[in-house]
Amino acid sequence: MHAYLDNHSAAKPCSSALERMKPYLEDEWGAFFSPHQKGIEQAHALSGKVEALYDFVRAKPEDRFYFASSGADAIQKLLDHLYLEASRKEGKTRYIASSLEDAPLLHGLKRLEELGCHAQIIPAREDGRVDLKELEEAIDPRTALVSVSFAQGLTGVIQPIEEIAGICRKRGVLFHVDATYAAGKLPLEIAGDYLTFAGDRMHGLKSSGALFAKSSVPFPSLGSSVDVPSLAALSAAAQQAVLSMDLMGLETARLRSRFEEGILEEVPGAKVLFADSLRLPNVSLFTFAGVHAEALLYALHRKKVYATIGGVYHQHLHRLLLACGEEDAGAVSFCLSRYTTEGEIDFAIAKIGEAVRFLQSLSGGL
Amino acid sequence: MHAYLDNHSAAKPCSSALERMKPYLEDEWGAFFSPHQKGIEQAHALSGKVEALYDFVRAKPEDRFYFASSGADAIQKLLDHLYLEASRKEGKTRYIASSLEDAPLLHGLKRLEELGCHAQIIPAREDGRVDLKELEEAIDPRTALVSVSFAQGLTGVIQPIEEIAGICRKRGVLFHVDATYAAGKLPLEIAGDYLTFAGDRMHGLKSSGALFAKSSVPFPSLGSSVDVPSLAALSAAAQQAVLSMDLMGLETARLRSRFEEGILEEVPGAKVLFADSLRLPNVSLFTFAGVHAEALLYALHRKKVYATIGGVYHQHLHRLLLACGEEDAGAVSFCLSRYTTEGEIDFAIAKIGEAVRFLQSLSGGL
Repeated sequence: MHAYLDNHSAAKPCSSALERMKPYLEDEWGAFFSPHQKGIEQAHALSGKVEALYDFVRAKPEDRFYFASSGADAIQKLLDHLYLEASRKEGKTRYIASSLEDAPLLHGLKRLEELGCHAQIIPAREDGRVDLKELEEAIDPRTALVSVSFAQGLTGVIQPIEEIAGICRKRGVLFHVDATYAAGKLPLEIAGDYLTFAGDRMHGLKSSGALFAKSSVPFPSLGSSVDVPSLAALSAAAQQAVLSMDLMGLETARLRSRFEEGILEEVPGAKVLFADSLRLPNVSLFTFAGVHAEALLYALHRKKVYATIGGVYHQHLHRLLLACGEEDAGAVSFCLSRYTTEGEIDFAIAKIGEAVRFLQSLSGGL
Repeated sequence: MHAYLDNHSAAKPCSSALERMKPYLEDEWGAFFSPHQKGIEQAHALSGKVEALYDFVRAKPEDRFYFASSGADAIQKLLDHLYLEASRKEGKTRYIASSLEDAPLLHGLKRLEELGCHAQIIPAREDGRVDLKELEEAIDPRTALVSVSFAQGLTGVIQPIEEIAGICRKRGVLFHVDATYAAGKLPLEIAGDYLTFAGDRMHGLKSSGALFAKSSVPFPSLGSSVDVPSLAALSAAAQQAVLSMDLMGLETARLRSRFEEGILEEVPGAKVLFADSLRLPNVSLFTFAGVHAEALLYALHRKKVYATIGGVYHQHLHRLLLACGEEDAGAVSFCLSRYTTEGEIDFAIAKIGEAVRFLQSLSGGL
C-alpha cells in the first residue's frame, strides 16, 4: 500500500493516452513532412486530435496552436518569440510575472534578463492570490508580457485570471496564462492572449506540452516537424480529462475534504492553508506545528506517502509561503488525482498522523 | 508489399527502444526531481542508460550531456547558449555553417541573424564535401561557431570532420558536428567540441535528441526535468545501433550496392551521384534523365516506393545539388535502414524502372 499525493510533480499517464499513442510508435511512425504514404498517415493521425485539444481549451478555429515538447518548452518558445517581436523590435523589454510561478517561467525570465530585459515579480497576498493592485501598477508602456498561472500547483489557489485579463486588455499588454495545474481540474479557456500547459501533469506524457494563442497576437512560426505519438497521447489525455471533470469536481473534491478533515482530527497542530480561497479541487496544503517540513517529507517517504515541499521544478514551498506572508511551520503539499482512492486517503491520514506525532515528540512537542 | 527508402526522414522505432521505454510509461512515471520513491525510481532508471549514450559517442566521463526533446532542440539549445556566452559576452557574432545543413540549424541561424548575428554559409564542392579552403578563410576572430554535419542525409556524403576539427582547433574556434545521419551508421565520437543527434533517425523516438560537449567548452545549464521514457528509448536505440553496426556496414551496404546496380541496369538515364565520395552505407542518390523529380516521387508513392527529394525539414535536394555544382535532373534520394530487406530492394528497382520509363515516355524520352 502506498499513497501517491504528488500529482503536481508528475501524474500517471492514463491508459487511453498510452493506447492512443501506440499505433504511431509501432506502425505509423513516418515523418510528418514526408509527401508519401508514411507522411500522409501522420497528417491523418493529427486529424481529430488537434481539434480535441482546441476543444479542451475552447479555442476558436482561427486561434493558433503549437505542439510543444513539454510545458517548459511551450513557455520558452513563447518568451523567445516575444523577445524578438516585442523586446527587440518594439523596445518592450519589461516582463511581469507573479511570485507564484514555477521554474520554467522563472528560468525563461532569467534568460531574458541576461539578454537585457527586466523581469518584475509581483508579490502574492495572504489569500495566495497575486496582488492585482501591484500588478496593475507595474504595467508601463514598455511591458511586453504579463504572465500568471491559472492556479498555483502547491497551494491550489486559483488566480483572478479574468480580472488580470481585463487589466491587461485595458492597458494593451499581452497576457500569458500557464494552465499547467488547472488543466484537467477546471474547464479551460484562453482567457488572456496565450495559454500553455504541460502533458505530464494531466496524465499525458512528459514529451508533450501546448501553446495556444488568440488569433490576434504575435505567434512564433516553429517549423514543421511534429511528434505525433506524443500529441496523440496529449489529445487522449485531454479528452479523458474532460470526461472526468465531474469526477474531479465531485469525487476527488470529496476525497480532498475527507483528507483535510481526517488530518485536522488526527494530527495535533495541523492547519489547512488557503482553505478560504478558491482552490483547485485536488490540492491540500498543510502546515504542522513543531515539525520540519524536510524531516516530515522524509518520514512520509519511508511510510510510502508521497507528497512535496516544492523545490527544483516547483517553487520552494517555503519561499512561496513567505511570498504570501504565511509562516512556514512544516508545510507540505498533497496533491490528489482522479485516480486517488479512499483507501489511499485513509492510509495517508494514518501515516501522516504517525509521522507528525513522532517528529513532534522529538522536538519537544507543541 | 512496399519499400520504405526514406529512413533519413523517419526511421521505425526499434522494438528494443519501445520495450525499454514501457516500464517508465506504465509504472515508473514519477518526476525526476521528486525526493521520494517515484523520483528515486527515475534516478535509478537513468543509471546505465546515460552511460550507454556516453559509450555511443565515446564520450569521456567528464564530457557533458543534455537530453534534448529532438535533434532540433539539441541544436537550438546549443545556439541559444552560444548566443549568450560567445556573442553577447565576447562579441563573437559570426556563425559559419556548410550549405549542406538541414532545417534545424538553418532556422537557428536565421534566428541568430534576427538577433544581430551574421551567418556565413560555406559552399560544397562537386564531391559533395564542404569546401575546406572557403571554410578556413571564413573564420575570423569574431567567429563563435563552425557547424557542419558529420554526413549529409540526402547525399550520404561523409564530411571531412577530422580536418575541420583540426582547422577549428588551430584557429581557436568552437566546432559543432550534427551527427544525426551518421548516428547508427558509423562509429561516432565527439570530434569537435559539440555533437548533436536526433532519436527518430536512428530508430529511437521523435521525442529524443542529444547534445554532447567536451568538458572544456561552454555548456548550457538546462534545468532538471528529464523525460525518462524517451531517454530510455534513445539509450536502447543507441545500444541496438552499436550491435547492428556490422549489419549496417555489410548487409545494408550490400543491399545498397544491389539497389544501385539494379537501377543502373534497369533504368535508362539513371546515374548515381557522389558514388566516388566517401558515403554512408545506406544512402543512394540518383538522377534520372528526362524526368521531373516531383513527378517521379509522386509516381513512386503510388507504387508504394517511399523516397525523398528533400524540402521542409531537409534541404531541398534541388538546392543541395546546385550547391555542389551538380545538375538536378530528376534527383531522388533513397535511404535504407538495417531493416530494409532484399525483397524491398528488388521491389523498388522494378517499380522505379516502371515509373521512370513511363515518365520518360511522356516527356519524349531521352
